[in-house]
Amino acid sequence: MKGVVLGINPEARLVDLTHEIPPGEIRAGAFSLLASCRFFPAGTVHLTVVDPGVGSARKAIAVKTKDFCFVGPDNGVLSWALRREKIVSVHELRNEAYFLEPVSRTFHGRDVFAPAAAHLSGGLAIQKLGPACDKVVQLAWAEQDRAGDQLRGEVIYIDRFGNAITNIQTAELEAFGGRQHLEVWRGKKAVCGLAEFYGAVPAGQAVAVPGSSGFLEIAVNSGNASQTLKLQIGARVRVRKGRV
Amino acid sequence: MKGVVLGINPEARLVDLTHEIPPGEIRAGAFSLLASCRFFPAGTVHLTVVDPGVGSARKAIAVKTKDFCFVGPDNGVLSWALRREKIVSVHELRNEAYFLEPVSRTFHGRDVFAPAAAHLSGGLAIQKLGPACDKVVQLAWAEQDRAGDQLRGEVIYIDRFGNAITNIQTAELEAFGGRQHLEVWRGKKAVCGLAEFYGAVPAGQAVAVPGSSGFLEIAVNSGNASQTLKLQIGARVRVRKGRV
Amino acid sequence: MKGVVLGINPEARLVDLTHEIPPGEIRAGAFSLLASCRFFPAGTVHLTVVDPGVGSARKAIAVKTKDFCFVGPDNGVLSWALRREKIVSVHELRNEAYFLEPVSRTFHGRDVFAPAAAHLSGGLAIQKLGPACDKVVQLAWAEQDRAGDQLRGEVIYIDRFGNAITNIQTAELEAFGGRQHLEVWRGKKAVCGLAEFYGAVPAGQAVAVPGSSGFLEIAVNSGNASQTLKLQIGARVRVRKGRV
Repeated sequence: MKGVVLGINPEARLVDLTHEIPPGEIRAGAFSLLASCRFFPAGTVHLTVVDPGVGSARKAIAVKTKDFCFVGPDNGVLSWALRREKIVSVHELRNEAYFLEPVSRTFHGRDVFAPAAAHLSGGLAIQKLGPACDKVVQLAWAEQDRAGDQLRGEVIYIDRFGNAITNIQTAELEAFGGRQHLEVWRGKKAVCGLAEFYGAVPAGQAVAVPGSSGFLEIAVNSGNASQTLKLQIGARVRVRKGRV
Repeated sequence: MKGVVLGINPEARLVDLTHEIPPGEIRAGAFSLLASCRFFPAGTVHLTVVDPGVGSARKAIAVKTKDFCFVGPDNGVLSWALRREKIVSVHELRNEAYFLEPVSRTFHGRDVFAPAAAHLSGGLAIQKLGPACDKVVQLAWAEQDRAGDQLRGEVIYIDRFGNAITNIQTAELEAFGGRQHLEVWRGKKAVCGLAEFYGAVPAGQAVAVPGSSGFLEIAVNSGNASQTLKLQIGARVRVRKGRV
Repeated sequence: MKGVVLGINPEARLVDLTHEIPPGEIRAGAFSLLASCRFFPAGTVHLTVVDPGVGSARKAIAVKTKDFCFVGPDNGVLSWALRREKIVSVHELRNEAYFLEPVSRTFHGRDVFAPAAAHLSGGLAIQKLGPACDKVVQLAWAEQDRAGDQLRGEVIYIDRFGNAITNIQTAELEAFGGRQHLEVWRGKKAVCGLAEFYGAVPAGQAVAVPGSSGFLEIAVNSGNASQTLKLQIGARVRVRKGRV
């Protein structure tokens, strides 16, 4: 993919976002993009290929937003990042003049998405890539919800440190109550209290912190929360006032 | 290695091909290079260091082809890619003026190959690096062969998705018969049919597809073929007409 | 982090040193930096974030040396590399004008260190980043020592090949005696002899070689010394004259 990009736009700056998306894990790709895309300079083209449906009828799209372009399969992998962006237009990648020929049916990253991203990075008008389309496939996003004096959510990503990142937005927490009195619960068990950073608790102890991507995350200081606390993607958790 | 390259040619563009070659696996390096080198722009210097014999008598070489330069140990790692290239000349890296001094005997990637590649990328004439030599060590390449109504080959690479890539060329398959009636067999067992892309079969089911590197590959849709089907490098497979 | 750097200095050249530091392993980061920093061109900014204490009271620093700048948490991760450098000045990162706002307490790599490194790479005078400070936290460095006719040290790093790198400096070995008569011992057992390169012994056999970072390393040719010989970080070893 990088060879193809540089063949089209030799001036392109290439940055790998991560090497750690498990095969076919659209949600892990979607979260990684969501967590980082806004930290790149305006004008960045975000090329995102987690594409288990390559070759099938799923569409290939490019999305222009106020600040960025996004290119990838229309399988939801872009959708979490796009929730926070101002979409200008969406185009289906159909213009074969911008494909690498012959197009394989097993590696559109190289043959369809990389050329499109390279051309966009070089200044091509997005509408040249294909017809406008009016929507983007949405990956289910579990909304946090408030039930009485509890804020409920679930784990949406496990990072390489084993931290379990939830869909509970830090900003919401502020509104919910003073952090120092809150606890994270899972089922009938209190998991941990909240603090500002990992080292606020002794090594080996669990703690929930406002994560750098804007979501509450559950960690074990100098440890692996996912393993220690058996927290997998989808695990339901609640934040409530502690029993102080 | 990258620091050394940038010290010699600050304008060099650096692209990592892969971080997933197991230690000392010359064949994995050779296949990765074969599968991707032609997708880089003409003029690219392909620096390839899978070098278990570093420090020994194996030669260090640079190869100029019609479109590229290749630099690496002469242990076969370049040879599969070179099968498809038009070789212009081969030179042994012997001119110590282009070594990083002192040369270690355990990391020629840094001390010998990176400087050579950097100088080539900056325009140095390849013959400056050392004397011409007339051949390149060949890594054994198992040729597919046709026996009656069967096309026989073997697995030559397992990619990070667990797909088992064979030495059976897709182009040959075309000549062999209509894909829709073909099956892959292993020993006395039919493994799977052929299709155009992974998702043409239900998740968890095996399928052989024309891979993006030009070879037939055996996959499990949304799964890991190498694990599920116990396919390792060297596993013998056959393509034959199905029993429809 | 890379997005932040490029937003501040679009001309910055970014090189990943490694993707293989285990979470929180300050010593592994310190060794990787020590082993490679001098191979980058003068003027390089070395941004090093192994930061288990992020958000706590540990300082954030930038260090100017004769040839480089170093940026990272003041937890010792920079200290091994700095042992070999000529320090010009050390500054604490306190000037919030060079922070990414709002500063998280869980990812200073992105919010504090990356902006500082980017500004330095663009030519900012280091004293702008904050007040000078007079020392850098030192990570314990186990010194080799000589006891009678033995040179004693320990394993300080395991590389991705499983080679066990010791703190015994190759240069010291020269002074200690002719390499060809030396052996590595562990407890009451001779582990292996010394040679110049891995392939000097048959595949599967242990050998100690002068490693490319300037330290004696214990390897198994075409194998994994750490696993085979059960050598972990901290394992004590000795070099002595062999019983020839």
